[in-house]
Amino acid sequence: MAIKVIDVKAGIFDENDRIAEEVRAQNSAQGTFMINIMSSPGAGKTTTLLRTIAALQEEFRMGVMEADIQASVDAEKMAAAGVRSIQVHTGGECAMDASMVRQALREFDTSDLDLLFLENVGNLVCTAEQDTGAHVNVEILSIPEGDDKPLKYPLMFRVCQCVLINKTDTRDYFAFDDEAVKERIRRLNPKASVFFISAKSGEGFDAWLDWIREQAGKGMEINNRK
Amino acid sequence: MAIKVIDVKAGIFDENDRIAEEVRAQNSAQGTFMINIMSSPGAGKTTTLLRTIAALQEEFRMGVMEADIQASVDAEKMAAAGVRSIQVHTGGECAMDASMVRQALREFDTSDLDLLFLENVGNLVCTAEQDTGAHVNVEILSIPEGDDKPLKYPLMFRVCQCVLINKTDTRDYFAFDDEAVKERIRRLNPKASVFFISAKSGEGFDAWLDWIREQAGKGMEINNRK
Repeated sequence: MAIKVIDVKAGIFDENDRIAEEVRAQNSAQGTFMINIMSSPGAGKTTTLLRTIAALQEEFRMGVMEADIQASVDAEKMAAAGVRSIQVHTGGECAMDASMVRQALREFDTSDLDLLFLENVGNLVCTAEQDTGAHVNVEILSIPEGDDKPLKYPLMFRVCQCVLINKTDTRDYFAFDDEAVKERIRRLNPKASVFFISAKSGEGFDAWLDWIREQAGKGMEINNRK
Repeated sequence: MAIKVIDVKAGIFDENDRIAEEVRAQNSAQGTFMINIMSSPGAGKTTTLLRTIAALQEEFRMGVMEADIQASVDAEKMAAAGVRSIQVHTGGECAMDASMVRQALREFDTSDLDLLFLENVGNLVCTAEQDTGAHVNVEILSIPEGDDKPLKYPLMFRVCQCVLINKTDTRDYFAFDDEAVKERIRRLNPKASVFFISAKSGEGFDAWLDWIREQAGKGMEINNRK
């Protein structure tokens, strides 16, 4: 059966880039390396962050900016774990943009932080379109979502320096082709690092933690969109 | 630890509602009942649709409008299964809106269809904000995503007449509280029907198929946003 395809015009992104550069410059000047974590809803951003922060707590001073449409459940989890965090409610917006980050940074003193994580809204589309001012972008793709996601949400995989394939502990339940997903990511973004992890069991975390150490070590001259 | 919360202004939706009414009126006039299927990426929209259409093929003439940012993999799956479909590329937009549906309906002759399914972009945020002109909205939440999603994406659960909890075959792998999720949905939307299904095994499909029959039987006077 033949497939008919029609294209619909997209919107334009603009002024946000200028503000993102400001945010990056401010964080760089104070020595705070900012990592933007993106994924679909339920792919494991919060669990991955909690384990990552626990593993790195002797090395870095860390904080988390939690972005959600309106709930505060993730910031509550961070607070319960003793992690410094702020909850940003986007008021319906499907992604954090740089001006929201700038606004949050006025309320959330990050001047003594080495690492600032942004846990973005659960979304594979809008979040990829907005430069948040982070130094690097990380996407978490979970095994249950399927290995075809780079085909369907290519921009997300293009803008990320690192892709974490999470929930490797659920492998037996889902058909997921590791080599196919790696090849699909490589075609979109040959330089992206890809790590298979389980935020539940900790499997594969060493490589991911080393990646963070290396990126943060490279320092603040990194500009994730250039 | 205290949680700081700030709110950021949302955008406004407008003209779309007028076009949605046009789309609904056109479909109602020709006797086509339109069902908008929404979910996170990888929650199982395509698999659910393929099984649903196979089960109902003796009763209804059906077609599928596939919406994706840019890929055509889902329309290819539909075509391989012999299902009439059109692929709409949203060109970066994170949801179908009514004008995209209207545009697609100019290319895709649905005049002889009883049921038209819209497989929306994988997204829990933007899709919920746009009236597509469908008669009813259905959300698929999958077990691996977690039972907290109604708390984090409440609008989605408010605008849906039916919530399918999919991938019940993966229960043993994930902590998912059925009663908690039902209560969270009920608080947002007391009238929503909730069915637990496995699109893989077919478990729970009878109640979902009956729901479609009942809704389509009620006919075209239904207006999902009023």
